[in-house]
Amino acid sequence: MELLEIIVKNIPAIDNAAIKVAAEREDQLTKPIGSLGRLEELVIKIAGMRAEARPSLDKKKVIVFASDHGVALEGVGSYPQEVTMQMLMNFRVKGAAINVLAAQAGADISLVDMGVACPYPEADDVILRKLGPGTANIAVGPAMDRATAVKALETGMELALLDADKGMNLLAVGEMGIGNTTSSAAIICAVTGNSPDEVTGTGAGLAPEKLQHKKEIVKKALAVNSPDVTDGIDVLASLGGFEIGAMAGAIVAAASRRIPVVIDGIISSAAALIASLIAPDSVNYMIAGHRSQVPGHSFALAKLGLEPYLELDMRLGEGTGAVLCFNIVEAACRTLDEMATFAEAGVSEANDEN
Amino acid sequence: MELLEIIVKNIPAIDNAAIKVAAEREDQLTKPIGSLGRLEELVIKIAGMRAEARPSLDKKKVIVFASDHGVALEGVGSYPQEVTMQMLMNFRVKGAAINVLAAQAGADISLVDMGVACPYPEADDVILRKLGPGTANIAVGPAMDRATAVKALETGMELALLDADKGMNLLAVGEMGIGNTTSSAAIICAVTGNSPDEVTGTGAGLAPEKLQHKKEIVKKALAVNSPDVTDGIDVLASLGGFEIGAMAGAIVAAASRRIPVVIDGIISSAAALIASLIAPDSVNYMIAGHRSQVPGHSFALAKLGLEPYLELDMRLGEGTGAVLCFNIVEAACRTLDEMATFAEAGVSEANDEN
Repeated sequence: MELLEIIVKNIPAIDNAAIKVAAEREDQLTKPIGSLGRLEELVIKIAGMRAEARPSLDKKKVIVFASDHGVALEGVGSYPQEVTMQMLMNFRVKGAAINVLAAQAGADISLVDMGVACPYPEADDVILRKLGPGTANIAVGPAMDRATAVKALETGMELALLDADKGMNLLAVGEMGIGNTTSSAAIICAVTGNSPDEVTGTGAGLAPEKLQHKKEIVKKALAVNSPDVTDGIDVLASLGGFEIGAMAGAIVAAASRRIPVVIDGIISSAAALIASLIAPDSVNYMIAGHRSQVPGHSFALAKLGLEPYLELDMRLGEGTGAVLCFNIVEAACRTLDEMATFAEAGVSEANDEN
Repeated sequence: MELLEIIVKNIPAIDNAAIKVAAEREDQLTKPIGSLGRLEELVIKIAGMRAEARPSLDKKKVIVFASDHGVALEGVGSYPQEVTMQMLMNFRVKGAAINVLAAQAGADISLVDMGVACPYPEADDVILRKLGPGTANIAVGPAMDRATAVKALETGMELALLDADKGMNLLAVGEMGIGNTTSSAAIICAVTGNSPDEVTGTGAGLAPEKLQHKKEIVKKALAVNSPDVTDGIDVLASLGGFEIGAMAGAIVAAASRRIPVVIDGIISSAAALIASLIAPDSVNYMIAGHRSQVPGHSFALAKLGLEPYLELDMRLGEGTGAVLCFNIVEAACRTLDEMATFAEAGVSEANDEN
């Protein structure tokens, strides 16, 4: 628990001086005031995170955590459990959406095995941090014990801190795990207070007639475990999963180093909620990449006070919506940094006040 | 008129065979069906435009047309007319938002002077196609005569065709012109039938108390000129401007070469409406980059049947919203082209039908 406690205590406050300078410069750039819309608000927010008046985010990373879920036994998904391992192998050969979108964004990928159930040949390009062959079934008891939950969080922290040491300045957390939309729905219900009926979606493509069953499993998980919703570690231990804990840890660690973290879809936002319980100030370093088509996602973002930048009806996970948003984040930073001011360009300013 | 007539007749039909193959491949990729949301619909549409089942758009261009507007005399804007020239100079030294965003998108820029009123030192990096020192004042008569309107359209066509010959496969049209939101509002009212009160906005940042005056000028322009709203050339000649005509011509010419054109904000969408009157099939090659904060933009997009991909409250023009959307367009194309199929990756498919 030592690392966790230290990191949580070390999240710096947002730098209001940098925000002020950034906002002043934004209004001097050769464009009508406010005309870059949400890009302006975004880079000003990032200036506060980075404590830099002209932030430049050039070392981008997505960490993809893969893990299995005991609740997959309950028939809550449309894919067999082996798909977690198969997709991890697909990530290795760059065949998945996250590979393509990360390459396009100029972002590096790390692959982390937090608890993939099916065996696969050992590989240098997968970071092995297995906490077991998947979580226990949350429909009948807790996903993991408290010590394992702490270990999951600290694993994500360690990996994000290593990347921070190597210069990373923009992070997204992604995942793969058959069953993890069920775990995430349960976490979102626990933390936001919304009901399983409104939060639970069809995940990766569950047949509509099986959705009611998935909702019942989420209700059962909440009833059986009744987590302490003020305690992020208890929520994680109760409802899982290993990858969600690692994502939450990575988010908190990034915040401790002033690194903006772009949140992806429902699983990423469940991890963000756990991070917000463990370290409330970590929310200041979160950016919502996109609004997922999955119903529970909007409840999670609302609880976090985040408004997403993309709304493209995506629901793929892996970190795809977050990495796609990297371009928007960079556009916001580059316009503030690279555009000329009215004075520099010799352009006349507006006659009226705005 | 010869070029205009030839190009209009030469817009090919969308290729339904390519659409079918693209849609089939999209559903075989290693992701839940439909989970890339609007990226899937977008690349399938582009496959039809390009007549390629796996389109790749790697040669990107934004053509920025600058021109002045006689209606600026009416006090409809917040910046003096010299700003058109000053911003053209700013584009030359890469100080404007469009420079930064085009560089980030890996897109080339061309700068075209269609009728900038204020003098500036001649420069190799500005394509001179002046049709006059700005349009006439649309509040008292037509912006230009019919022959000049045809010339404006054909100029945009020529430039887009030259780029097409050099391999361009993705186009955005941008602009700079003090007074051109007034001209665009009038065009949007004429073509959509919406009223000046609902269409006219504060442009680059007009003081709210001057908005009513701008609305009156738009009403006057419509009343004085009463264009034939079934004739795109007459709408252009009546309501201007030179740059809007060139943008419309470039859009039509791109369509004739199966090149997708990303539409930007209100001025770009006014040009798109004129293109749609002159060559209705050109709409099949349009992509709405973003939804501008300017009220009339949504009416124009609705008339064109286009749903934008970004909603970031931008209202800058220059082509900025369109170029920012290039990343989304590329993401759509690259995921279809580069992702592995379930069969290729050895990943198990879903148990249930979606």
